[in-house]
Amino acid sequence: MIKREKDMIKEIKEQMRGGEGSVELLHIFKQEELRGKARLCAKITINPGSSIGLHEHVGEEEIFYIISGKGSVNDNGTITEVGPGDAVITGNGASHSVEAVGDEPLVMMAVILLY
Amino acid sequence: MIKREKDMIKEIKEQMRGGEGSVELLHIFKQEELRGKARLCAKITINPGSSIGLHEHVGEEEIFYIISGKGSVNDNGTITEVGPGDAVITGNGASHSVEAVGDEPLVMMAVILLY
Repeated sequence: MIKREKDMIKEIKEQMRGGEGSVELLHIFKQEELRGKARLCAKITINPGSSIGLHEHVGEEEIFYIISGKGSVNDNGTITEVGPGDAVITGNGASHSVEAVGDEPLVMMAVILLY
Repeated sequence: MIKREKDMIKEIKEQMRGGEGSVELLHIFKQEELRGKARLCAKITINPGSSIGLHEHVGEEEIFYIISGKGSVNDNGTITEVGPGDAVITGNGASHSVEAVGDEPLVMMAVILLY
């Protein structure tokens, strides 16, 4: 199945997971299109200063793949900067947060794999 | 876990799945890092004229998310053009192929979810 960008559902989340500002999620495929093997497949855009707050992933594994922009990631307690081409994987009870830093939006692909 | 682009393993496949030319796979996470829920998470780069040949996905679901460039996709028998922001999902025994068309490389993220 082909899904065109124009047919993807856009969702704006304010103070996502207790973070700052707003985060845009463009749902590439919905959960029911992922046959129960993943619950999220989205392009996420975060403007500078906005963030997704610290949260745990239990019973699932989330992948972030940075397409453009820069982010400050709390990777289960360690804060580090990520940029285009870098990736983060968080699961098995670990926590993460991500804040867009610098001058341009942080754009990343996110996939949550279910156990 | 953070994975830096410089630490990702690059693989070049010639005539991948019976296609033309060569295809570069940059493995964002290896299968063992995906806890058995996915067997591929890669950035795939295909130069114009090169392709991944037609193949089935049985017992798994593959997602392509186009980052840049243009592709001609055979989506289980229907040939269509895709560009940045478009996505393809193929599984449950369906087939697909993808050829880079136009002047620039086709760059996409690919994830294979296991049933």
